[in-house]
Amino acid sequence: MSLAAYGELEPRFARLSHLAGASAVLHWDRAAMMPPGGAAARAEQLAALSVLRHELLCQAEVGELLDRAEADAGDLDDWQVANLRGMRWRWRHAVAVPAELVAARSKAASACEMAWRSARAADDFAMLRADLEGVVGLTREVAAAKADWLGCAPYDALLDGYEPAARAAGIDACFGELEGFLPDLVAAVLEAQADPPPITGEFPADRQRRLGRQLMADLGFDFEHGRLDVSHHPFTGGVPGDVRLTTRYEAADPFAGLFAILHECGHALYENGLPADWRGQPVGGAMGMAVHESQSLIIEMQLCRSDAYLAYLAPLLVNAFGVDGPAWRPDNLCRRVRRVARTPIRVTADEVTYPLHVILRYRLERAMLAGDLPIADLPEAWRAGLAELLDIVPPDDADGCLQDIHWMGGDFGYFPTYTLGAIAAAQLYETLDQAEPDLPMAIRRGDFRPLLEWLRAAVHGWGSYHASTDELLHRATGRPLDPGAFRRHLERRYLDN
Amino acid sequence: MSLAAYGELEPRFARLSHLAGASAVLHWDRAAMMPPGGAAARAEQLAALSVLRHELLCQAEVGELLDRAEADAGDLDDWQVANLRGMRWRWRHAVAVPAELVAARSKAASACEMAWRSARAADDFAMLRADLEGVVGLTREVAAAKADWLGCAPYDALLDGYEPAARAAGIDACFGELEGFLPDLVAAVLEAQADPPPITGEFPADRQRRLGRQLMADLGFDFEHGRLDVSHHPFTGGVPGDVRLTTRYEAADPFAGLFAILHECGHALYENGLPADWRGQPVGGAMGMAVHESQSLIIEMQLCRSDAYLAYLAPLLVNAFGVDGPAWRPDNLCRRVRRVARTPIRVTADEVTYPLHVILRYRLERAMLAGDLPIADLPEAWRAGLAELLDIVPPDDADGCLQDIHWMGGDFGYFPTYTLGAIAAAQLYETLDQAEPDLPMAIRRGDFRPLLEWLRAAVHGWGSYHASTDELLHRATGRPLDPGAFRRHLERRYLDN
Repeated sequence: MSLAAYGELEPRFARLSHLAGASAVLHWDRAAMMPPGGAAARAEQLAALSVLRHELLCQAEVGELLDRAEADAGDLDDWQVANLRGMRWRWRHAVAVPAELVAARSKAASACEMAWRSARAADDFAMLRADLEGVVGLTREVAAAKADWLGCAPYDALLDGYEPAARAAGIDACFGELEGFLPDLVAAVLEAQADPPPITGEFPADRQRRLGRQLMADLGFDFEHGRLDVSHHPFTGGVPGDVRLTTRYEAADPFAGLFAILHECGHALYENGLPADWRGQPVGGAMGMAVHESQSLIIEMQLCRSDAYLAYLAPLLVNAFGVDGPAWRPDNLCRRVRRVARTPIRVTADEVTYPLHVILRYRLERAMLAGDLPIADLPEAWRAGLAELLDIVPPDDADGCLQDIHWMGGDFGYFPTYTLGAIAAAQLYETLDQAEPDLPMAIRRGDFRPLLEWLRAAVHGWGSYHASTDELLHRATGRPLDPGAFRRHLERRYLDN
Repeated sequence: MSLAAYGELEPRFARLSHLAGASAVLHWDRAAMMPPGGAAARAEQLAALSVLRHELLCQAEVGELLDRAEADAGDLDDWQVANLRGMRWRWRHAVAVPAELVAARSKAASACEMAWRSARAADDFAMLRADLEGVVGLTREVAAAKADWLGCAPYDALLDGYEPAARAAGIDACFGELEGFLPDLVAAVLEAQADPPPITGEFPADRQRRLGRQLMADLGFDFEHGRLDVSHHPFTGGVPGDVRLTTRYEAADPFAGLFAILHECGHALYENGLPADWRGQPVGGAMGMAVHESQSLIIEMQLCRSDAYLAYLAPLLVNAFGVDGPAWRPDNLCRRVRRVARTPIRVTADEVTYPLHVILRYRLERAMLAGDLPIADLPEAWRAGLAELLDIVPPDDADGCLQDIHWMGGDFGYFPTYTLGAIAAAQLYETLDQAEPDLPMAIRRGDFRPLLEWLRAAVHGWGSYHASTDELLHRATGRPLDPGAFRRHLERRYLDN
């Protein structure tokens, strides 16, 4: 009986997954391939797919089947139980929000994103204020609606949409620990660090691309199952088995584009490492945004900014660009790619100051949603928060509270996952490092198989089988998320050298 | 009342159109961008979209709404009546075929296409025979099912799916006329034509591409609304407003890739010239495959193989490839791109012999569907037919009855539209030529605006407003489809020079 109900759910969720996959490819195409004149048609295609998926997921039968399958979950095996949990999670986040509210917020978000582009270009927050107030108001309604269905606080309900089972209480504790040591650590690093020699010259995009592809292939990325292209903002899209990475190339600085490739390659290795047999089912998807970010950062930060990796990379850079001189020695590459700075911009921030940028946004978004921070006061609150956390003042609002698109699109509750991911990455890498004492030697040789095999076994191969990121981390590292490893990592890398 | 029913149909068909557009982009991506490892996921995405569109179209309410809207069609304006006709046509072709038959034929076609690749590579028809028998058997069932709903003969029912309102009787008459003069014309041309001087050297793909883009832009193609890429077989995909063209480049022969671009550009100009305000509705779509092919051939054959166009093209070729010598003079370019030959291969055939290839396929596909030609006898029937029509024998089955994929995929009734399109192109161009006496001078200057404006007004801007290709041609040229202009064109171009 329950197996019958469960058995009817699998093909329904497979269909939803295929439609989501179609949307993912169309999103990638829009960013990487589509001519500008295709925007109107693409918006219609994506909206049609999105509404259809929502309709299919919210059909009355789905809720009934979920109830029946759960009522007799004793007949299901563990994998099916995990899959059923993923189904319920998707269903709950969908049915919680009335279709009109979904549509209204989506429309408001589109308008706000348009206004944001103009406001940022003009450095004029006032141009955006009314639109952002609209988005925040509707997001508050979404949060309240989801909170009812999920039985949690409104902010937690938003957070849960990006990071299943995460709650603000856990983030408060975690971020509190970071705030306790990061400001002093930043000051100490800035005092201790030495400048690398400058680099000059041009680094043609096609050479950057060729080297980027080689680095990806060496890491274990299979170009039979993905592509590397260019878009305005680097991202990883597509579907497992056909992952589409993008980056952008700066002619004067090869490191920006290459490290963006390495970051996205971490995401891509995760997507392509999800269990092939589980594809199309919720349990076969990625765990959540924190684990996803941990997989990009374990490559970009833990691995690729390590001494061993930079020793491997140095001759490849020399060869790819025909450069020489002390700036290209491994020790100076370390100084370059580990440079810490108090900068107002999150996306170019180093791994030491990055969490402070996230903490600022976490505080502000909670205050805005709770109604404690009027939108009109956001620029001033941003300046005050940045001064407190990082001891700097942004030059203007464009590089202050207008720098990120997230809130404009209604993405509240997303920012914390960046830092949860950084912490998880450090924790996983510390465990890996202890389990594989020969890892640095392998890395120097360009042999990343031990690393990838460990990640496949500990993270990728589990999909979202676990009930939470904490459970996954517990199984992989022996304990739930713990900022200790992140602190040890930063102190070792930035103070002990 | 009827307007209410009609009013409910428009958003339903708009949704279907957006989903079809999503599929079109995914098809293009598969051919031009997708890594091989993405095939399995893509097949699932496309199948999910296709089944969903079929389900949405076959919902009981759609049939009821169509009935009600048609019952009071007197309240609708002409545009709505035309749109309603398009809706009914789509609906009829969808509901006619039971879902299990659709699925069975689709599965058989996939298997047959796979078998065809191996059979063609091995030049072994026997490897394919059973699979092709399966496809023909299921296509016969589809034809019978559609014939019931459309009230016409089974072959006509298939034809109608590619070319609304076309019937075999009309094609018989038309092809009969061609058969009456083409064999003698071919013989006369072969006797009269002179060889061009050989061309040598390498023609790098990036230079071909750059020139191809220039030729497209000069013709009026707007790269804000489309792209040019590479695929194994040239085609035009995407959606109106975002048209995706592909070609392939041969290093030793720039004409193959460039004329493929020009051909596809004709299709693309049509798609992007469809009325922007009608997008998403059936009446806003292309008329049928014959008119579509007429728009590619009016560019590739009528325009781009004309004296005037080749006079414009000659210096561009010299400049693009840094070549010189007599082979690149306009008169020798004419000899090269208008060379007629008795070749066994349809896709590389010239415009004089091409209809004979089509007539062969038309005869054979009708005989196979009627059961008059056992599949096992196809290779021999092909050889006999080619000998009769073109006085040649293919070197083997690979370049004989195994050369085309159409039948393997279940596409019966498609081949005739190639030649209907060639005839329509000649008829349209003759009318245009008479209406615009200065056209050749404009073409020599690279000014294609008069041509494009005429096509926009006579063809593109009408979508599928007309009930048939004959009606569209009547309005544009004063008479229905008529092989006379095609004959005059061939005689003038190939015998009078």
